[in-house]
Amino acid sequence: METQTSAKPTAEKELFIKMVISNWELQNARFNKLISKLTDEQLSTATAPDRNTGVWILGHLIAVNDGMIPLLGLGEKLYPELEAPFIGEANKPGVTAPPLAELKQKWEQLNVKLTQYFTALPADEWFTRHNSISPEDFAKEPHRNKLNILINRTNHQSYHLGQLVYLDKKQ
Amino acid sequence: METQTSAKPTAEKELFIKMVISNWELQNARFNKLISKLTDEQLSTATAPDRNTGVWILGHLIAVNDGMIPLLGLGEKLYPELEAPFIGEANKPGVTAPPLAELKQKWEQLNVKLTQYFTALPADEWFTRHNSISPEDFAKEPHRNKLNILINRTNHQSYHLGQLVYLDKKQ
Repeated sequence: METQTSAKPTAEKELFIKMVISNWELQNARFNKLISKLTDEQLSTATAPDRNTGVWILGHLIAVNDGMIPLLGLGEKLYPELEAPFIGEANKPGVTAPPLAELKQKWEQLNVKLTQYFTALPADEWFTRHNSISPEDFAKEPHRNKLNILINRTNHQSYHLGQLVYLDKKQ
Repeated sequence: METQTSAKPTAEKELFIKMVISNWELQNARFNKLISKLTDEQLSTATAPDRNTGVWILGHLIAVNDGMIPLLGLGEKLYPELEAPFIGEANKPGVTAPPLAELKQKWEQLNVKLTQYFTALPADEWFTRHNSISPEDFAKEPHRNKLNILINRTNHQSYHLGQLVYLDKKQ
């Protein structure tokens, strides 16, 4: 530790947080634009032969991003019932998924809620341990913090956006 | 500006840089694992009907990631000749692309070079302006810095990884 004159560390952290949240918002904007362009029929189609449908990708992203709420210690999942149909293998026997219109609504509501949580989280908190790394491991790998989860989930969403775009007609 | 006792700002920046580079490395590791698993025949196949091949995605990622070198002010592109075949529309008339074996080699060499550049870049430099934003805009939006380019390009790579995985046999 040293004493020195510098910009407040919090201001630097806030800049990092803004970079990560901006990239998440950018991916959300792209995803939303595509979802609103595709018809329900297109969204119900497989993105490639024998691959997941647009509806599954939407449900999967809700379930995975909703999982950030407990993982970051922000609260409880909004839609725990989406885990069974949308995490792991698609079309599990005996598991039913909500209709598309409901999923679209849940996606919007989840993003409103996540934005609220993210805005309210103090800068220092973003650099603390998330709930799937042990205190011992975190002491050794402090880059595996809460903000890192959001970087990771943004990449996960980009991965599926690359698949969803296959439902769009070629220009 | 305030004087206060705190961790060195450089240490905070270094942690954040590590987060971003680790995520880039994670996406590279996943991409490399998939590329080495797929046969040349699979890679030459369209990822979905009437969509890009694995070879095009590989060439495209080399061309785009290579573009980070001048954009970040690190030097000249290694493979400027890949811009014509792999940026913009695929299969442009009169444009030929190098064979797959050569692309695989260029991908590896590019990642070695990028790793060298990224490791050598001082922490403070990562938070400076990149070459496609004006000084005026950067003054207003300091989060659009060099490190932000790497976050963005990592998401771009994830997007195409989600497509490339469609060449893999279903488990």
